[in-house]
Amino acid sequence: MRCLYHLPLSAASRLVRLALAEKKLDFDLKVERVWDRRDDFLALNPAGEVPVLIEPDGTTLIEAPVIVEYLEEVHPEVRLIPGGPVDRAEVRRLLVWFDVKFRQEVTDNLAGEKIMKRLMGRGYPNSEAIRAGRANIHYHLDYIAYLAERRNWLAGEDFSIADIAAGAHLSVVDYLGDVPWEDHPAAKEWYARIKSRPCFRPLLGDVVPGVSAPAHYPDLDF
Amino acid sequence: MRCLYHLPLSAASRLVRLALAEKKLDFDLKVERVWDRRDDFLALNPAGEVPVLIEPDGTTLIEAPVIVEYLEEVHPEVRLIPGGPVDRAEVRRLLVWFDVKFRQEVTDNLAGEKIMKRLMGRGYPNSEAIRAGRANIHYHLDYIAYLAERRNWLAGEDFSIADIAAGAHLSVVDYLGDVPWEDHPAAKEWYARIKSRPCFRPLLGDVVPGVSAPAHYPDLDF
Repeated sequence: MRCLYHLPLSAASRLVRLALAEKKLDFDLKVERVWDRRDDFLALNPAGEVPVLIEPDGTTLIEAPVIVEYLEEVHPEVRLIPGGPVDRAEVRRLLVWFDVKFRQEVTDNLAGEKIMKRLMGRGYPNSEAIRAGRANIHYHLDYIAYLAERRNWLAGEDFSIADIAAGAHLSVVDYLGDVPWEDHPAAKEWYARIKSRPCFRPLLGDVVPGVSAPAHYPDLDF
Repeated sequence: MRCLYHLPLSAASRLVRLALAEKKLDFDLKVERVWDRRDDFLALNPAGEVPVLIEPDGTTLIEAPVIVEYLEEVHPEVRLIPGGPVDRAEVRRLLVWFDVKFRQEVTDNLAGEKIMKRLMGRGYPNSEAIRAGRANIHYHLDYIAYLAERRNWLAGEDFSIADIAAGAHLSVVDYLGDVPWEDHPAAKEWYARIKSRPCFRPLLGDVVPGVSAPAHYPDLDF
């Protein structure tokens, strides 16, 4: 059986969970407490990070965008990077946008400071970083609204890994109650659509000990 | 004609220049002073960053890894992500390693602090960041040596975009004189091989006003 090492509030892990579920590929989930720096896990991924996907044939895959490209090549039945080369470049541009830019500007400043820093034993949250994350998210929600008002899904006509990447990151920040949905109705409308997809359901059921999600978090009609 | 907006000491721009040259695709270079935030350029890339590639048919491509995947699909004659899906996953893992991890831990701390910060009008270099960059580079040179001692090129038997990404970043840090080659002979031996490829020649001729490279920088026998 395919196995995904993950953490419930790792956005990159959620991205891969969503991609696997959309592609209807079964997998077991194993929580990897990366802060324990287990030798067996470091042998799988020297960077010591989740997600790590072990395919049924033993192939070890690391880094969310790399896993997505691999799944797209080996399991192309459901396409997450659809269309021709130009369409695919737009999907990938937005994948990088959320996986790198949104992560640095928002997710790392909020989930990184509030949760991962404590777990990794790196001290207390930096309130300046949290303020920056809460300011930056407006700019990203505006951009999601801009795209969603002009296109069916974020990268174009078809649902793609761009929507999944954005949804994965926002779901983590939403668990912390840090998404100002009321100020961004068009982004909220797009998120309601992705949240209602069957692949999203397992994420909304995750419970992280010591961190409780706001009441609206699992609600499809939030 | 294909046109690449770039900056001479942008590692991501160098990555694309090297990829285009390896694929024997002609292109014009335009220096884009991103700190001027030109409207016409922001219309091409809302993120306001280089590299941006304009294909002969007008297609606009943004983000080095996205450009590479596009070129690989449209101009597959010379492969930079070679092999089967597992080989390609390893090439992409290392592309992410250098394009994201090395950048954050080394390039941003050195070229970012010493050069880009001043040009962007964001104040003086942070000496703590520069110290961190100079410490982190040892760990990355060890990793390059580890790979180069076990494989013909970094990702496996064949030269790939993994070598190009590592070479692009190291060439920028080397321009600043911040690569401790003497401590890392195996990494140096690998770099000498990539540096002697014809595609590398134009980079070594770049001159950046106000920043002079050390004497060994353009030297193939350094």
